[in-house]
Amino acid sequence: MTGGPGDAGRPRAIQDAYPDPVAHCYGCGRLNPEGLQLKSYWHDGEATAVFRPRPYHTALPGYVYGGLLASLVDCHGTGTAAAAASRAAGLDPERDPPPRFVTAALRVEYLKPTPLDAELHLRGRVREHTGRKVVVEVTVEARGEITVRGEVVAVQVPEAMARPGA
Amino acid sequence: MTGGPGDAGRPRAIQDAYPDPVAHCYGCGRLNPEGLQLKSYWHDGEATAVFRPRPYHTALPGYVYGGLLASLVDCHGTGTAAAAASRAAGLDPERDPPPRFVTAALRVEYLKPTPLDAELHLRGRVREHTGRKVVVEVTVEARGEITVRGEVVAVQVPEAMARPGA
Repeated sequence: MTGGPGDAGRPRAIQDAYPDPVAHCYGCGRLNPEGLQLKSYWHDGEATAVFRPRPYHTALPGYVYGGLLASLVDCHGTGTAAAAASRAAGLDPERDPPPRFVTAALRVEYLKPTPLDAELHLRGRVREHTGRKVVVEVTVEARGEITVRGEVVAVQVPEAMARPGA
Repeated sequence: MTGGPGDAGRPRAIQDAYPDPVAHCYGCGRLNPEGLQLKSYWHDGEATAVFRPRPYHTALPGYVYGGLLASLVDCHGTGTAAAAASRAAGLDPERDPPPRFVTAALRVEYLKPTPLDAELHLRGRVREHTGRKVVVEVTVEARGEITVRGEVVAVQVPEAMARPGA
């Protein structure tokens, strides 16, 4: 099923509104039980998410491995793009599935080691939105410090691919 | 234990030569049983690796999710840097642990969708090597086509961090 409205009083995660055929992403798909199931929320012109790494998401012991951080930046970036494009198109974010974006390019700067035993706070902000392309800047913060800065160039997938049954 | 020499007739993977304290990376550490355990091999001036994605490493169904590809580029890039720096320092790659690198910056271009049901072939080549910094270009190829092109800026970790017992 396509994700329904959120529980009373809680907005629906951007990824939980993706149509079923495109909700299997390992990083953020609600239909991928083995995946990370990142959930991003839109408010006040930006998207935020919180993720707690598993103990085995190690780089050097005690720190988060870069591939996980890149994955979170990636999925939070495409989620931010989806939410922003949904609003720009006048869709109802609580009812209409947002357009689905994929990543054309990803850039991640590891500013300092990210501690493994901390909640990671992600923020995504649209830097550019032209046609089907959205450029999103993402930061990852742990214990009040920004440890990672990333940029996602997200491109909207064709409607036929996103909702083959539509 | 530190990875011993490879089996007879087979060279040792670069990551299998990392010292124990820095061999827990989720992407490529031999001491991380939950991890991807990417293995890279150096020959003829470049590093190669082969990885078979798991069925759940999905982006849109049928394709590999970008975070996995970023992870492979990352770990293959630092592995390439380690092997190149080891040789530049005159170490014996079959006996001496290589210097360990971490990623300072990562750039990934998704040139086309990467099929999920294919072996992925990675190549890493050093573009620049100055002091403790190595810039590596990585490609990912599936069914004879390059689907991803990446760049890893790798920085050598301090010796005391890489081999605390040394």
